[in-house]
Amino acid sequence: MKRSLSGIQPSGILHLGNYFGAIKQFIDNQYQYEGMYFVADYHSLTSSTDPDALRKNSYDIILDYLALGLNPENSTIFLQSDVPEHTELYWILSNLTPVALMERGHSFKDKIDKGISPSMGLLSYPILMAADILIYDTDLVPVGKDQKQHLEMTRDIAIKFNEKYGENIFKLPEPIIIESLAVVPGTDGLKMSKSYGNTINMFASKKELKKQIMSIVTDSTPLEEPKNPDNNITQLYSLFATQEQLEKMKDNFIKGNYGYGHAKNELLEIILEYFKEAREKREELEKNPDYVKEVLYKGAEKARLLAKNKIIKIKKAIGLLGNRY
Amino acid sequence: MKRSLSGIQPSGILHLGNYFGAIKQFIDNQYQYEGMYFVADYHSLTSSTDPDALRKNSYDIILDYLALGLNPENSTIFLQSDVPEHTELYWILSNLTPVALMERGHSFKDKIDKGISPSMGLLSYPILMAADILIYDTDLVPVGKDQKQHLEMTRDIAIKFNEKYGENIFKLPEPIIIESLAVVPGTDGLKMSKSYGNTINMFASKKELKKQIMSIVTDSTPLEEPKNPDNNITQLYSLFATQEQLEKMKDNFIKGNYGYGHAKNELLEIILEYFKEAREKREELEKNPDYVKEVLYKGAEKARLLAKNKIIKIKKAIGLLGNRY
Repeated sequence: MKRSLSGIQPSGILHLGNYFGAIKQFIDNQYQYEGMYFVADYHSLTSSTDPDALRKNSYDIILDYLALGLNPENSTIFLQSDVPEHTELYWILSNLTPVALMERGHSFKDKIDKGISPSMGLLSYPILMAADILIYDTDLVPVGKDQKQHLEMTRDIAIKFNEKYGENIFKLPEPIIIESLAVVPGTDGLKMSKSYGNTINMFASKKELKKQIMSIVTDSTPLEEPKNPDNNITQLYSLFATQEQLEKMKDNFIKGNYGYGHAKNELLEIILEYFKEAREKREELEKNPDYVKEVLYKGAEKARLLAKNKIIKIKKAIGLLGNRY
Repeated sequence: MKRSLSGIQPSGILHLGNYFGAIKQFIDNQYQYEGMYFVADYHSLTSSTDPDALRKNSYDIILDYLALGLNPENSTIFLQSDVPEHTELYWILSNLTPVALMERGHSFKDKIDKGISPSMGLLSYPILMAADILIYDTDLVPVGKDQKQHLEMTRDIAIKFNEKYGENIFKLPEPIIIESLAVVPGTDGLKMSKSYGNTINMFASKKELKKQIMSIVTDSTPLEEPKNPDNNITQLYSLFATQEQLEKMKDNFIKGNYGYGHAKNELLEIILEYFKEAREKREELEKNPDYVKEVLYKGAEKARLLAKNKIIKIKKAIGLLGNRY
C-alpha cells in the first residue's frame, strides 16, 4: 500500500469551500493509502504570530478532521512540531539547496510583490516541506495546483542528495493533483474564501449557520414571480441534494410562488442533515480532550518511529557520528 | 556559576596554532564556568561534503580535547547533531529573522565575494548558531573577533523574540573575546595555518613531528658563526620554555657553534615533553572507543535535558500545542 502524506494548515474555522475543495477527498480516499496527516503548525509560524490563535486553530483542525470521519485507527494523525526530525532534515537539506532556487519560489515571489519584508522562514519553507515529505519515504502527496512547484523542488533536492551521497536514500514522491470537486460559491456569489468574509461554516452553531445562509445574496424578484433557477442557493444546494431534490427546487423557482427564504431554509436543512453525524461527533470530541490528546500522542509515536529510523540512515550517509540512538 | 558554551569545529588535525590560539584557554578556564562544549558537526555541513572526513574529524576532535585535559566529569561534551532541539529552535527563530539581516553577515559576504554559489545553509547558519546558544540559557560565549558579529545577531534575534512573545524567554548572552595567547609561526615563519601547509601537529607520530620541526625554515649561516637569536625556532620554543631555557638557547645562538639542527632537536624535545601526558592519554583513548562513546552519550543526555525543558517553554510561548513531552 502506498504511503500518502498531507499537511493540514491550521488556519481557522473550516467552511464549505475547504470541505469540497480538498478535505472531502482526503477523507474519502483515506483507506486507499497508508495515510499520514499532520497539522503543519511549524509551517504556520511563517505567517501566524498570535500564539493563542495558533494553539486554538491547531486543536480545532484536529477536531474538524476527526469529526468529518478521518479514522485515527487507520491513519497517522500528528502535529508536525511533535517530530523534531522534520527540522533536523530541514537543516541537512538546507546545505544542498541553493539560495537562488528558493528565491525562484512562486509563493515567495508573490509575497515579495505584496511588499512583505521576508523572513528566513518564508524564504526557506519549501525546504521544510521537502523534509516533511522525504523523512517518511512518502510515495504520494496530494497537492493543489499552486503547490506543484514545491513538490518539484522536493524532488530536485532529493535527487541532488541521492547523487551526492551515492545512495538511494530518498524516495522520489509523486504528486496527486487535487481537483476541486465543485466551485463552491460564497454567500455573495464569489468563490467562498475566508478572506472575502463570505463563508458558510458547517461547524458553526445552528443560529450562526442560519444567519450565514440567510445572508446569501439574491435578487429582489417578488415572491409570486418565477425566478432564475441557477442562483447561489441552488448552486450550494446542488452540493448536497440528490438530482431529484435539485430538480424540484429548480422547478419551484421556475413556477413562482417560491421565495428565496424558502429555498434558504431547505438549504439549511440539507446542510444540517449532511453534517448531522459530523456535528454530533465534533460536540462529543469537544467534551473529550483526553481522547484527542491520545490520538495526537499515538500519532506522534508512530510518526517518530518512522522519522527516527530514517534520520539514522541519513546521518550515517552524510557523516554525522550519530550517538543519540 | 555562569554557563559558557563553545562550539568546536571538527576541521581536521589540530596544530600548535589552534592550541595556543584558543584551545589552551578553553581547557585552562574549564573550572571557571559551567562549561558546555559541542562538536559543531551540523555546522560543518555548510562546507564539508565528505562523509568519511566529517566522521573522522568529529571523532578526532573529541579525542584531542579529552587528551588535552577537558574534563567530562566537569563539563558537558556532546555532538550538536545529538540534540535535535538545536534545529527545532533554528526553524522557530528563522521566522523572526529577516533575510536582509542574514545577507549582511560578514562571513556570508566574504564567501559570496570568493565566488561561492551560496546554499541556504550558508546563508542561515548564524540562526543555527543563535539556536545553539539560546537553547541553553547561555551566559557567556568565548568567541574570536571574527565571530563577534554572529553573537550580536544572536542577541538581536533573542531581543526580537522576547519583545514579540512578551516574556523573557531568552537570556542575552555575552561574548568573551578570546585573544590569542601568542602569535604562533608556522614552519615557514608565516602564521601557522592548515591552509598554508606550515603546521606542527602535536599529536602527530614522533617521526612526523620531527619531520615537521626539521622543516622549519632558517637561514644558511654556517654552524660556527653567531646567529640571530630571534628566529622561527626560538619563537616556537618560547611557547614552551621557561625564561631561563629560552635565554640559554638565545645565548647559544649568539655565541655561535650552535646549529639550527641542535635547536630544532631541543624544540622537538620540549614539545614532546609538554604534550607527553596528552599524547599518552590520546593513545589510550584511541584504544578505548567505548569510553569516548560513553562521554558523548552522557554529554548528549545532559544537554538534551536542558534543551528539552527549554523548547517546551519556547513552544508554549509561540503557541505550539506540544504533545511530545
